[in-house]
Amino acid sequence: MTGGLYTDLYELTMLQSYLDHGKDKNAVFSLYVRDLGPERNFLVACGLETMIDAVLSYSFSRKDIAYLRSLNRFSEKFLGALENYRFSGDIYAVPEGRVLFGDEPIVQVEGSLPVCQVVETLILNIIHHQTLIASKAVRCVTASGGRPVIDFGLRRAHSLESGLFGARATYIAGFAGTSNLQAGAAFRIPVYGTMAHSYILSFPDEEEAFRAYIHSFPDKPVLLIDTYDTIAAAHLVVRLVREGLAVAAVRIDSGDIPALVREVRAILDSENLSEIRILVSGGVFEHDIDQWISGGVPIDTFAVGTCIITASDQPYLEMAYKLVEYDGEPKVKFSPGKVTFPYMRQIVRRYRDGVMDHDEVVRWGTGTDGECLVEPVVRDGQLIRSHPTLEEIHERVVCDLARMPRYLKSLSKGDYPVLLG
Amino acid sequence: MTGGLYTDLYELTMLQSYLDHGKDKNAVFSLYVRDLGPERNFLVACGLETMIDAVLSYSFSRKDIAYLRSLNRFSEKFLGALENYRFSGDIYAVPEGRVLFGDEPIVQVEGSLPVCQVVETLILNIIHHQTLIASKAVRCVTASGGRPVIDFGLRRAHSLESGLFGARATYIAGFAGTSNLQAGAAFRIPVYGTMAHSYILSFPDEEEAFRAYIHSFPDKPVLLIDTYDTIAAAHLVVRLVREGLAVAAVRIDSGDIPALVREVRAILDSENLSEIRILVSGGVFEHDIDQWISGGVPIDTFAVGTCIITASDQPYLEMAYKLVEYDGEPKVKFSPGKVTFPYMRQIVRRYRDGVMDHDEVVRWGTGTDGECLVEPVVRDGQLIRSHPTLEEIHERVVCDLARMPRYLKSLSKGDYPVLLG
Repeated sequence: MTGGLYTDLYELTMLQSYLDHGKDKNAVFSLYVRDLGPERNFLVACGLETMIDAVLSYSFSRKDIAYLRSLNRFSEKFLGALENYRFSGDIYAVPEGRVLFGDEPIVQVEGSLPVCQVVETLILNIIHHQTLIASKAVRCVTASGGRPVIDFGLRRAHSLESGLFGARATYIAGFAGTSNLQAGAAFRIPVYGTMAHSYILSFPDEEEAFRAYIHSFPDKPVLLIDTYDTIAAAHLVVRLVREGLAVAAVRIDSGDIPALVREVRAILDSENLSEIRILVSGGVFEHDIDQWISGGVPIDTFAVGTCIITASDQPYLEMAYKLVEYDGEPKVKFSPGKVTFPYMRQIVRRYRDGVMDHDEVVRWGTGTDGECLVEPVVRDGQLIRSHPTLEEIHERVVCDLARMPRYLKSLSKGDYPVLLG
Repeated sequence: MTGGLYTDLYELTMLQSYLDHGKDKNAVFSLYVRDLGPERNFLVACGLETMIDAVLSYSFSRKDIAYLRSLNRFSEKFLGALENYRFSGDIYAVPEGRVLFGDEPIVQVEGSLPVCQVVETLILNIIHHQTLIASKAVRCVTASGGRPVIDFGLRRAHSLESGLFGARATYIAGFAGTSNLQAGAAFRIPVYGTMAHSYILSFPDEEEAFRAYIHSFPDKPVLLIDTYDTIAAAHLVVRLVREGLAVAAVRIDSGDIPALVREVRAILDSENLSEIRILVSGGVFEHDIDQWISGGVPIDTFAVGTCIITASDQPYLEMAYKLVEYDGEPKVKFSPGKVTFPYMRQIVRRYRDGVMDHDEVVRWGTGTDGECLVEPVVRDGQLIRSHPTLEEIHERVVCDLARMPRYLKSLSKGDYPVLLG
């Protein structure tokens, strides 16, 4: 169950006032990103299944009610109504994994005004976070040109939960796996990892450390080779392999990465050890990957952490959850710089020669002869289809990337046409 | 209990290898920030109590062990040992709320190597997140010159948990409260909030919305006045107050904030309504606050969200958890650009005329005639003092800010001298 207190106070003050004034007519709220910002060409919709589970289990325990009573702000009538709160509305959404743009509704919620209002914070928090991370991670995937990318971000994620759902988002975006065991257990994401510098340092020397690790994990371990002298460590790896010990890969976490990788690759290749792969980590982000891959640096696998799990170049999206219809009337906020489009919307995607050409955001029920992205997923508080697997969600990313024009996939800024009808 | 899977896989592969090779001698790990980065002059240590609770309850359930067994990587001997894992080491730390700098150990952990290694990810995640947010939030507090600052960040925090502990960090830094009810309930932080634009939009017009809200909350509500026309709404507020209705404050969330605030203030003052306060929200960050306060814009309260809860200008710290001693030997990693100082350390702070002059980071047990910041907090896996209250922790921030040289408190970059002995 998701505790009812995971919300902002104002959701509940508004609710009490809605109740006082009988304002329980049908409302439609739309969740969308206003502007993709300077660094993103597209979004990967993410977090929907997590959000649905949270919304459908959102409720107030007696302890929650007791806390709210202690604030001396709410009526007993209202607190009694809260105790019976269950989400009873409809949710329309773009399926997780689909590619999206600014001004396009990711999630739309319809139902009685208070029922849809109170889950605003919950819906925003979950969809914002996972869409943010998936939309960042997919850039590493496109930049790496098919080479595996792994999430090492847990330690710098903004909370343990941020690391957990961040790992989910990176896997949907196309990462090969994560170092995060909780994510491995919760979502069956493949897990990766070997050793830290502290492991190497705890032995008298690097050779003893490598031998000890191979002894513990004889089935092709990955050895961290940059603790003292990366090149000397590469020669040591060669010596150990010549003795018959197995090494799957070496990891380089610091220093002049392109130069070290080339030199280590040359050392390994000159000894006919081309099957030993090179994994690079340590503050890597998508522009590094892009630059190194285009420069022909022979890296096999990328482990990325901080920059991806915090979306450090753009750590938030301009995402909003706006009332767009109430009691059949269109609703629009006119404040400067912030415009809301009224009514429930459909997104229609048009292709030219199999390539995405433009999207049209149209009023629900009109002009839907193209590909329609928005689907009903919850009706009257009930999920109307089962959750897809993460692999199925990831397949949607793959399909959309395959049909996306090249300029959008590049790390340079490009704008896809979205027509607002 | 904190589940054992909230860690990186490599912590456990290292652990199995330590067990295989009898490597359980005494180790010291040091958690510190390498470099404060371009935007921070100091850190506010934060997250210690949360981290201690997590470390002391860190354990592996049968379900955790079953998942680890399914990875086909671990020996039964090792999994059996994990089932009995409890943290049995010592923790030395700078108390939460103290001001700190780069290269200074925030937390030091001493004990058997595997016991201290396995909690690396957990300790880093928790201390990094809360220290990051407290160190960002304190900049709003110093910039606001005593005016209340409130956290409205939950919706854009990187997970619900990030919003919860982020609110804790902002309150320690000096925020007056939060909109986050879970944080209010969990940490007894004062909660704030009134209405969203959707509330106003759900009524036929603004006047009806204001009247309805005041009817529900007659005890001096805050009214959101920027949904349609901020100036017209200010005149409407005047009219309602003249009728005898109570209004505590107005909130402006968009538009040209300084111009609107001045104009609204003038309207209210000309009607002798100087007691009605003006609250500003909507993408506010510390440089806005600084600029508006120095420009004399008559804002009474700031509500900040996204920029603070994501530390958006610098969403991570270069924080590391490094082995600095094993079995009595100093440990240092020599990779270029990353240097670790060996041994357990004390931080000695020197004052001149009551103002912080410089810090010395010295080997534990030497030269401690000044103010020593590092204290033992856990011994043999047992907490050796009770947790302070958040108000006590916040008092430490207040004391340190009062003794801090002015150049550090400014939003311009300044470097405090830290001498490494």
